[in-house]
Amino acid sequence: MSTVTTRTVAYPADGLTMIGHLALPAGDDRRPAVLVGPEGPGLNDFQRGRAESLAELGYVALAFDINGGRWFTDPGEMLARVTPLLADPDRMRDIGHAALDVLLAEPRTDPDRIAAVGYGTGGAIALELGRDGVDLRAIGTVNALTTGRPGEAARIRCPVWAGVGSEDPIMPPAQREAFTAEIEAAGVDWRLVVYGGALHAFHHPPVDQAVVPGVGYHPRHARRAWRDVVDLLDECVPVPG
Amino acid sequence: MSTVTTRTVAYPADGLTMIGHLALPAGDDRRPAVLVGPEGPGLNDFQRGRAESLAELGYVALAFDINGGRWFTDPGEMLARVTPLLADPDRMRDIGHAALDVLLAEPRTDPDRIAAVGYGTGGAIALELGRDGVDLRAIGTVNALTTGRPGEAARIRCPVWAGVGSEDPIMPPAQREAFTAEIEAAGVDWRLVVYGGALHAFHHPPVDQAVVPGVGYHPRHARRAWRDVVDLLDECVPVPG
Repeated sequence: MSTVTTRTVAYPADGLTMIGHLALPAGDDRRPAVLVGPEGPGLNDFQRGRAESLAELGYVALAFDINGGRWFTDPGEMLARVTPLLADPDRMRDIGHAALDVLLAEPRTDPDRIAAVGYGTGGAIALELGRDGVDLRAIGTVNALTTGRPGEAARIRCPVWAGVGSEDPIMPPAQREAFTAEIEAAGVDWRLVVYGGALHAFHHPPVDQAVVPGVGYHPRHARRAWRDVVDLLDECVPVPG
Repeated sequence: MSTVTTRTVAYPADGLTMIGHLALPAGDDRRPAVLVGPEGPGLNDFQRGRAESLAELGYVALAFDINGGRWFTDPGEMLARVTPLLADPDRMRDIGHAALDVLLAEPRTDPDRIAAVGYGTGGAIALELGRDGVDLRAIGTVNALTTGRPGEAARIRCPVWAGVGSEDPIMPPAQREAFTAEIEAAGVDWRLVVYGGALHAFHHPPVDQAVVPGVGYHPRHARRAWRDVVDLLDECVPVPG
């Protein structure tokens, strides 16, 4: 929509220069704001479009970067970047906090109504912000049902919505159970949607990017997962008016 | 809303006289129609209200009866009625078909756009209609993740949405897995929402009814499960205009 304005934002994190994509709705009032985290390959036009779609709905939205402006098309390069990152909560939090600071520096952002939504690696980062005690109003994670350091899930004080494909070999049932057991024991308000027959990254249209085994697009569930994310935001950080 | 009209409908099924509650939206045009099945204790004002809420959204909706007009407040009586029923797909189908016939006899019903949603026993009946090959456009089942006779799930040709409380001891993880394995193997388009921390019948406000161990109300998840059901209907049998 022409009423949405966008801005490329460069900022430091994890020893790199991150290149985020900030999307603002029409108007000049403060709005609830959303961090949108990308999959392991990094930020592409599809993920930038997610921020723009949220801005069309009335949110300030930052599609944040995890790979210093790079978007990996080679699976080996992608995994070399993402695997150690996913094993290091402190690095994930650094990337998440840097993105959060960009959002907080935007005058349109209502600092008391921030949600974090992420896909794959971006979802793991959203969860780590919660485990770090950041005052988020909602966390949404698609395909990243990652557990954290012992005891830290109790710092999550907002609803957590998680989605995963039933046939996702990268996020198998045992991992889902470990994740839900962790957040249930921590007293978190949570939901999990299992999308039947879907593989990893089922929500992402096929593009020329790093495709690893177990990945596959599922258009129907992709639409449903987007609606579920929008419903989560509408519940926890509704757009005024 | 005053624009919704309701009608009590008596009809035979399972050797009993069932007393359903039909709710019609304003207007005189054909509309998508929804069967709404109650929990084991039977039909009460809360379940009748579900049909009225759907009529307010524009659907023809029948809150159907499973217990011949009775609403059990004694757990023993309720289980004596429901346990053998749940073990007999033919009896469940008889009850479901009788309700479907009431819906089809209503001139406002669009016979090509019928969905079945049920809670507990009512959800098991909705699934059995699908396994019987009825041309439904959507099946929603809350707390009833019941498996069927071998091979019959392949007759389900519409999306299935299922919801369950994570801590529901009456519908434990092994049962959920048996259910999702059955419908995945059958090629059904399905989703499962696990509501964290919720018990059995989490969607039903506490009332003077047959309460068995493992039952408990969860207001937040109750609202979410209702929204999920409405989303399912909006996806599969949207109200025109």
